[in-house]
Amino acid sequence: MSILVTEKKLRDFVEAVFLTYNLTKEEAFVCSDNLVMADMRGVHSHGVARLKRYVDSIAQGLIFPLKKPTVVLETPNTATIDGNAGLGQIVGYHSTKIAIEKAKKTGIGVVTVRNSNHYGIAGYYANMMLQEKLLGISMTNSAPLVVPTFGKEMMLGTNPISLAAPTKRNRPFFLDMATSVVPRGKLEVYNREGKTMPDGWCVDEKGKACSDPAKVLNNMSNRIGGGILPLGGEGELFSGYKGYGLALIVDILCGVLSGGAYSDLVYGEGKEGKGEPPNVGHFFMALKIENFVDFDTFTSKMDDLLDRIKKSAKAEGENRIYIHGEKEYEKVEKYQKEGIPLQEKVYETLQNIAKERKLDFSLR
Amino acid sequence: MSILVTEKKLRDFVEAVFLTYNLTKEEAFVCSDNLVMADMRGVHSHGVARLKRYVDSIAQGLIFPLKKPTVVLETPNTATIDGNAGLGQIVGYHSTKIAIEKAKKTGIGVVTVRNSNHYGIAGYYANMMLQEKLLGISMTNSAPLVVPTFGKEMMLGTNPISLAAPTKRNRPFFLDMATSVVPRGKLEVYNREGKTMPDGWCVDEKGKACSDPAKVLNNMSNRIGGGILPLGGEGELFSGYKGYGLALIVDILCGVLSGGAYSDLVYGEGKEGKGEPPNVGHFFMALKIENFVDFDTFTSKMDDLLDRIKKSAKAEGENRIYIHGEKEYEKVEKYQKEGIPLQEKVYETLQNIAKERKLDFSLR
Repeated sequence: MSILVTEKKLRDFVEAVFLTYNLTKEEAFVCSDNLVMADMRGVHSHGVARLKRYVDSIAQGLIFPLKKPTVVLETPNTATIDGNAGLGQIVGYHSTKIAIEKAKKTGIGVVTVRNSNHYGIAGYYANMMLQEKLLGISMTNSAPLVVPTFGKEMMLGTNPISLAAPTKRNRPFFLDMATSVVPRGKLEVYNREGKTMPDGWCVDEKGKACSDPAKVLNNMSNRIGGGILPLGGEGELFSGYKGYGLALIVDILCGVLSGGAYSDLVYGEGKEGKGEPPNVGHFFMALKIENFVDFDTFTSKMDDLLDRIKKSAKAEGENRIYIHGEKEYEKVEKYQKEGIPLQEKVYETLQNIAKERKLDFSLR
Repeated sequence: MSILVTEKKLRDFVEAVFLTYNLTKEEAFVCSDNLVMADMRGVHSHGVARLKRYVDSIAQGLIFPLKKPTVVLETPNTATIDGNAGLGQIVGYHSTKIAIEKAKKTGIGVVTVRNSNHYGIAGYYANMMLQEKLLGISMTNSAPLVVPTFGKEMMLGTNPISLAAPTKRNRPFFLDMATSVVPRGKLEVYNREGKTMPDGWCVDEKGKACSDPAKVLNNMSNRIGGGILPLGGEGELFSGYKGYGLALIVDILCGVLSGGAYSDLVYGEGKEGKGEPPNVGHFFMALKIENFVDFDTFTSKMDDLLDRIKKSAKAEGENRIYIHGEKEYEKVEKYQKEGIPLQEKVYETLQNIAKERKLDFSLR
């Protein structure tokens, strides 16, 4: 069962929750905008369903909502930021603004961030750069849930990569993908629906293919062994080492280059739940297109590239080839008109947050 | 059957072949070094087995060996290069040198290239940056062999991504991966050995899973329909749209950002074999690590990251977790001692090239 809520009311409510922590209006807006954007795009796992975790982490002293990110090292086109265990969304927002400013001035802005928290969807920051007519890249490392090829321990995050690029006629190219074959949320859906997972998604405590979502989820929660596989699946037959390599790239750019945490040190032993912030790392890069090619040429060629692919012949039984971001843009349009569907459980959680933070609650 | 040749003699022979086109000593060295490095790393599909294709393409006027790349647009940290249909290796080498120089001066060097040719292994250029203690990234678009999710036409190249990062004790992290699930060479191996391919590698002319390598190879050569799948395989079950998205990222950075060709325009209709150069695009990026974090901290943390993963528990039946590049570094060491194994057919092809270019031939 899901409950339809209006975008405006949901935005205002989430913003109000963040304002109770004495954030500035701008910062509370960003936190709300980030979560609601995920729901609007249909990525409910990263939407307001996560608000409770932020609220709890603040209460537990894992997130310090009033801490501002500080610049550790800076040059005209680079910066290293310490998030000071602040809200990931605020750290991400300020860091991306720095990348944007540097790209506008010098053509490129590369910013790496340590000691941050979960920053919501990676695409939020790529989209900020896109709105400034820049080519935007955003990555983050995350809690270890992914098992390396030939391993059986969760040693890497689902470490997403997002890239957004402007177009002229078409919707922008807007990829936002985990480097694991599936996100944990997918296992939860299969579990709720009593479905068997295909081999190639997960491994059990022996590091062998496992199709039982309940077992894998239990193994993951209790760190018994096994977890989610990298993009490409188990072993080498479907090139799972490539997804594993992509996860490592993200960890190198977010965790190592920033001088922060990586692998199982992120949300690691002795961290989450034990009073120590998770030390998440991010990486942002903005490229000023005009420094490489005329902006108009770029967007025209983007249109032509996307058109060629969309117009190419379809597989039997398929009638559409999607470009990355299209499905999500269409969902945004639909939800703007019809309202956003929230799971009843999520709705109730928000209601409880309203009580806890002494706020009015009306989303419909 | 394979024939063992010595590294030194193979290097000298390939260099001599390129010198017959009046390249400079430095350029001939680079072309040879690039091809032999692939063989030494065990990537024989990109090694001297390809020399014949370069020689033929020069004869056909698709590669102009004496054309130098020219700078179209340049800023202190970016450059757009026109390869002028020169040798991809030379274009790649000069472009990477520009990226290195810019990174050393400004912290970052980003170079995008149009109108080049096949540049060998992507890792060659990432390794050049690595040798300068930079974090190096190299990408290229390539002949369309990959079918987008829900499509049945080859619209994207195998578009590889390479990233190399320095370490202290460990071998460097050195990833060099196609964004397709497998390279075409793998289909050829299965075909030669009469083996059935697993579903998830390729689709047939209807865009449906096909396990017959002979059929797919024939379909690909004659552009009947179908081709290789992106990393993640067919449809959405194993997230094939992620590999498809990665291939698009490479095409955007190499083909669109450079103002060059992309999708099926690379080696496209009316191109290869019809007298027009294939207009391949590349992308190079070098990051100066010290601009983000102390170099020593970076390499120490790289060691720790790689150690943690290598030491983590192994799946049942496995006794080693590999880091990207390890297998290849070990192959280099083995071949340096024992010689490089060349397939008899490749050996004969080199012999014929020697005749054609009027060179002595002795590799053993």
